[in-house]
Amino acid sequence: MNSYGKIFRITTFGESHGTAVGVVIDGCPSGLVIDMDFVQAELDRRRPGQSKITTQRQEGDKIEVLSGIFEGKTQGVPITLAVWNEDQRSKDYSHIADKFRPSHADYTYQMKYGTRDYRGGGRSSARETLARVAAGAIAKQFLATLGVRITAYVSQVGDIQLGEDYSEFDFNEIENNIVRCPLPTVAEQMIRLIDETRKNRDTIGGVVTCIIEGTPVGLGEPVFDKLHAELGKAMLSINAVKGFEYGSGFNGVKMYGSQHNDIFYTTEDGIVKTKTNYSGGIQGGISNGEDIYFRVAFKPVATIMQDQESINTEGEIVTVSGKGRHDPCVVPRAVPIVEAMAALVLADFYLRNKVVKEQKG
Amino acid sequence: MNSYGKIFRITTFGESHGTAVGVVIDGCPSGLVIDMDFVQAELDRRRPGQSKITTQRQEGDKIEVLSGIFEGKTQGVPITLAVWNEDQRSKDYSHIADKFRPSHADYTYQMKYGTRDYRGGGRSSARETLARVAAGAIAKQFLATLGVRITAYVSQVGDIQLGEDYSEFDFNEIENNIVRCPLPTVAEQMIRLIDETRKNRDTIGGVVTCIIEGTPVGLGEPVFDKLHAELGKAMLSINAVKGFEYGSGFNGVKMYGSQHNDIFYTTEDGIVKTKTNYSGGIQGGISNGEDIYFRVAFKPVATIMQDQESINTEGEIVTVSGKGRHDPCVVPRAVPIVEAMAALVLADFYLRNKVVKEQKG
Amino acid sequence: MNSYGKIFRITTFGESHGTAVGVVIDGCPSGLVIDMDFVQAELDRRRPGQSKITTQRQEGDKIEVLSGIFEGKTQGVPITLAVWNEDQRSKDYSHIADKFRPSHADYTYQMKYGTRDYRGGGRSSARETLARVAAGAIAKQFLATLGVRITAYVSQVGDIQLGEDYSEFDFNEIENNIVRCPLPTVAEQMIRLIDETRKNRDTIGGVVTCIIEGTPVGLGEPVFDKLHAELGKAMLSINAVKGFEYGSGFNGVKMYGSQHNDIFYTTEDGIVKTKTNYSGGIQGGISNGEDIYFRVAFKPVATIMQDQESINTEGEIVTVSGKGRHDPCVVPRAVPIVEAMAALVLADFYLRNKVVKEQKG
Amino acid sequence: MNSYGKIFRITTFGESHGTAVGVVIDGCPSGLVIDMDFVQAELDRRRPGQSKITTQRQEGDKIEVLSGIFEGKTQGVPITLAVWNEDQRSKDYSHIADKFRPSHADYTYQMKYGTRDYRGGGRSSARETLARVAAGAIAKQFLATLGVRITAYVSQVGDIQLGEDYSEFDFNEIENNIVRCPLPTVAEQMIRLIDETRKNRDTIGGVVTCIIEGTPVGLGEPVFDKLHAELGKAMLSINAVKGFEYGSGFNGVKMYGSQHNDIFYTTEDGIVKTKTNYSGGIQGGISNGEDIYFRVAFKPVATIMQDQESINTEGEIVTVSGKGRHDPCVVPRAVPIVEAMAALVLADFYLRNKVVKEQKG
Repeated sequence: MNSYGKIFRITTFGESHGTAVGVVIDGCPSGLVIDMDFVQAELDRRRPGQSKITTQRQEGDKIEVLSGIFEGKTQGVPITLAVWNEDQRSKDYSHIADKFRPSHADYTYQMKYGTRDYRGGGRSSARETLARVAAGAIAKQFLATLGVRITAYVSQVGDIQLGEDYSEFDFNEIENNIVRCPLPTVAEQMIRLIDETRKNRDTIGGVVTCIIEGTPVGLGEPVFDKLHAELGKAMLSINAVKGFEYGSGFNGVKMYGSQHNDIFYTTEDGIVKTKTNYSGGIQGGISNGEDIYFRVAFKPVATIMQDQESINTEGEIVTVSGKGRHDPCVVPRAVPIVEAMAALVLADFYLRNKVVKEQKG
Repeated sequence: MNSYGKIFRITTFGESHGTAVGVVIDGCPSGLVIDMDFVQAELDRRRPGQSKITTQRQEGDKIEVLSGIFEGKTQGVPITLAVWNEDQRSKDYSHIADKFRPSHADYTYQMKYGTRDYRGGGRSSARETLARVAAGAIAKQFLATLGVRITAYVSQVGDIQLGEDYSEFDFNEIENNIVRCPLPTVAEQMIRLIDETRKNRDTIGGVVTCIIEGTPVGLGEPVFDKLHAELGKAMLSINAVKGFEYGSGFNGVKMYGSQHNDIFYTTEDGIVKTKTNYSGGIQGGISNGEDIYFRVAFKPVATIMQDQESINTEGEIVTVSGKGRHDPCVVPRAVPIVEAMAALVLADFYLRNKVVKEQKG
Repeated sequence: MNSYGKIFRITTFGESHGTAVGVVIDGCPSGLVIDMDFVQAELDRRRPGQSKITTQRQEGDKIEVLSGIFEGKTQGVPITLAVWNEDQRSKDYSHIADKFRPSHADYTYQMKYGTRDYRGGGRSSARETLARVAAGAIAKQFLATLGVRITAYVSQVGDIQLGEDYSEFDFNEIENNIVRCPLPTVAEQMIRLIDETRKNRDTIGGVVTCIIEGTPVGLGEPVFDKLHAELGKAMLSINAVKGFEYGSGFNGVKMYGSQHNDIFYTTEDGIVKTKTNYSGGIQGGISNGEDIYFRVAFKPVATIMQDQESINTEGEIVTVSGKGRHDPCVVPRAVPIVEAMAALVLADFYLRNKVVKEQKG
Repeated sequence: MNSYGKIFRITTFGESHGTAVGVVIDGCPSGLVIDMDFVQAELDRRRPGQSKITTQRQEGDKIEVLSGIFEGKTQGVPITLAVWNEDQRSKDYSHIADKFRPSHADYTYQMKYGTRDYRGGGRSSARETLARVAAGAIAKQFLATLGVRITAYVSQVGDIQLGEDYSEFDFNEIENNIVRCPLPTVAEQMIRLIDETRKNRDTIGGVVTCIIEGTPVGLGEPVFDKLHAELGKAMLSINAVKGFEYGSGFNGVKMYGSQHNDIFYTTEDGIVKTKTNYSGGIQGGISNGEDIYFRVAFKPVATIMQDQESINTEGEIVTVSGKGRHDPCVVPRAVPIVEAMAALVLADFYLRNKVVKEQKG
């Protein structure tokens, strides 16, 4: 389904080369002042053509408001945002209309639906994520009024990897380099690797790390809609994602309980904290007020600038040629997408928790 | 919320020391012959006290049918299964009634709900997962009629780790040892590590790997309810899970697109296959007919048999003593839980896809 | 599906002659003190055998708590309530196992599910409504803390009809007579008609009117989940209901706008009121603080104590004989069911509105 | 919420005087050939200004496709349709910005959301229903491939009323007169009454009757999502609706069971039919293959061309003047809206039933 969230609920629409890509946001609180320049700025972080290590396609991606904002404020009614696709009819896609590109969704869409929009991947294109970023930019403005801050950055490209202790990084550095890595020296290495990969007409994977600060205690709805379970689903729903871990993650497997347990204490101000945070800010599926942090693994982009063997709709062997302008590594542009999905999850859980809050005994 | 699934939908209920733990299954196809001995056998795989490396608590966990099965078959109406808790009133929990155990859900439940059932963790206890296993055993019987087979095993305990190529294992070995690892030599090492950990009054983490064979092409509902996104949520909703990866997972990050792309070919029988399967059987969020495989990371159990510092509901420093009988490592008993959640996801997506299927152009 | 509600959400289970009939209530606020005697008292109002004008079947319908209530209070976890069916195996239903009773659900269940529990109607039996009454009794206790009062009564049996102005009735009279009509003189006429109908081995229809007082402004979620739309669905989901109208209802059709419009005014205490209430307390799908009132039409019960022609599963003509003990008129026992469904709708919308409330500009 | 349906699911957006009004349709089967001229024709039936008895506002209401249709066919992805509002900035609404119009949603929206778009009722305007008609026109095309036909007509205006036996009407007459009544002599009376009412600067209510032919057996999902319960909700969610009844409806109350029961028989072709159809084609919440029929009551439009007393946002008494061009009676334009909502319900239940169908024992 093309909807996500229970109270703060989005529905995205649009294909890569259709008329428009957009989103309807239902359940956003009323009376929220909306800064559309911020929404555009978030889209610009995701936009193709922003640097030499992203695809060189140039798309304006100018956002328009179709409904829901009146006198600069939300009204408790559906907010619709859309970007018009440029030149969607100009290109000829007939050469791949009957071919299944390797590790794309061509084959599975064709088999599931019996038809597919073969122009640029149609609905399965990562272009759909611009709708998520637009909606996430609304969610972020709501969360900002609550003091919640979401920051993502690239922590790994290929085998070049940052240390895991995010407290040693200056988040202000993230947007200062085109790969969106907070450590400039590592950023340079990453950029070099991506650039080399691009020259080799190949692609490479990476990891995005995300930190959520300022979360109130109580977000998450056990037993199935645990906060990290929903964050995991949200991240795994992004194109090219292969893994998700939060807190100690896969490394926590090697630890003993006596090491891993986060010991509670009370600050002088009477605030409950934990001495360590292997729990990643979530216990029993509910936020405990510590930082929430998680890592998202992205595979190498499937579109490579090389000839590849494949089959067509008749099952015959064909050659798929790499053409066009594509990202050699998806993670720099994935940073705002990860943040947007995190914002959507948090906004939804914040509203779901409001239902619970007042009734506390 | 305590419900999971859209068509094949379960609602679990019950606290660790309440009257009963159970599940209502809605949307199960009618006319399905149910073998309740199989359901009991699955519960026995999850049962405490089954071996020296699990908790020594003895609970019968006998399943009862409250509704939905008539003349041995499902009727298209809700199926209710429940296990009565034994001796739920016998124990005195007052010593921890006002203490927050480290890395448990005590603190977050108290803060979210303003109250909590402190007896054995109440609703946040892993005892809730028996309801999932019972429901999963119904889902498995449905999937068996479709030729879908789900197999999970322990692939890592602490730093003892199996190789990732599951094709080299004999799945029949899994249930031949108490740690549920398909390689007997490694199984022994794992058992030794768990046993040592137990003697040290500590706990250790582990990884469960799951393989789904025989899946038809077409399961998964883009763009948000991608098959792997929903599998990820299902796994992350299990107590103590910290991470999920499928296909190439976090290791895929280091690969180039030219290596990672799975090349299609057609068998002599006209079946479309891929030469490699880094995609983990899922492309664009939809199953492609190859094996689905994923890994689930479990942290070390929070309950350790040691004194730990913590705070009470007044924020004062207290000592939490380790008592009772608990698992030194959760993964041997987590194997049937992972399988059950996978079965629930698959059954739901199979039914959701039926809606799509007939209309294919 | 067997679930109802979005936040305050119930799932009912159980067949007429299965092991148990019950309900899981998810999303009930935590910390609510529960009076189980009240729940039992509500069930007793619905219980068979309570008077000479209801079925003479004697069923204890004793409610049990399986989960969710600890130390007398709700915990924010699922509450499970169940009634065990008595003697469910004692009766022989083989004589109707292959017959479709006229105007029952036998034929449609058989065709939809390919199987059916023919014992007493199985899941389609009105016995399922006891689960609704039990859940509604929890919802009522929640609503009572908010000052919301729900009162239903029988306003019509056959062609014996009360006037529509409920302000002239003493609601305390309702439970003073066995037909649950607030006007004793009319109650007697109704009882006489039902009794005659019973003697004629026939059944007759009726109308239940329901008044909700003390509703806050703001309940209802346009544009689809309008308060009256959801009330309508809830009422129409009760067995034997054929119609629903609120406020001016079908009679409002004949009015002019200039008569029908409810003029606003402000009381001396600054409270906004309307001079008339043809709107039935709901405008634009949202409660306006006036009384909500609606009428629910029940058809004559399909089970009559007469021989009727019908067909069997082979399509052959057969005779269905009226046997057993059945209600000659369903409305006296439907009164608590209507109230329960209204309470469930109101509780859900109250919680849904909490999400909206704090954000008001 | 602004979404409706479970599988065939629509989300409407847009305010009366915002940029656009539209709908996203999710879950429509793929491969369906779409005739956009039919969609436009349906909108034209709802369009203002179509005759002397509707509002004289002239709006083109030209539909545009933003997503989901490729090469003339649906693709299993979200279909987005929108109508751009004309001249939405041209009018001055400041004179009613702080006034609550009687029996409109002004007051309840203001109280619920703390803000409201006062231009023409904003989101609460019946203009929202054009999105439903557009989506319904897609659902109708899907249902047409299954042989399902939906026909609505005006059966009552004020106290001028058609007989209830629809079999005596020629449905081809419905679109031959501007009030959409199948009996020309009664149509004329209705038109005269509406015209007089308009001249009196007043408004009047009416009833729309709807017949659904060709429904397969098995649509509807007990126990809460009964087919008639969902039809009721769908109809009650339409602006100005006050009541819903199906089959024998409120009149059935006066009948005896022995009269009301629909006796089954088998035709020579082996088809199961009922001799009467008081059940309205639905038994136990599931369609039985007979015609489904129901009646929907619409109140008189709240906007009248007269001065009315009311209050403003400060609670002070003010005069609301009737201006602009409005419908003296809503039912002629409501006919396509009723049909559209019925089509959406049927399409959704058809798809939900597909899940059930194959598994039949």
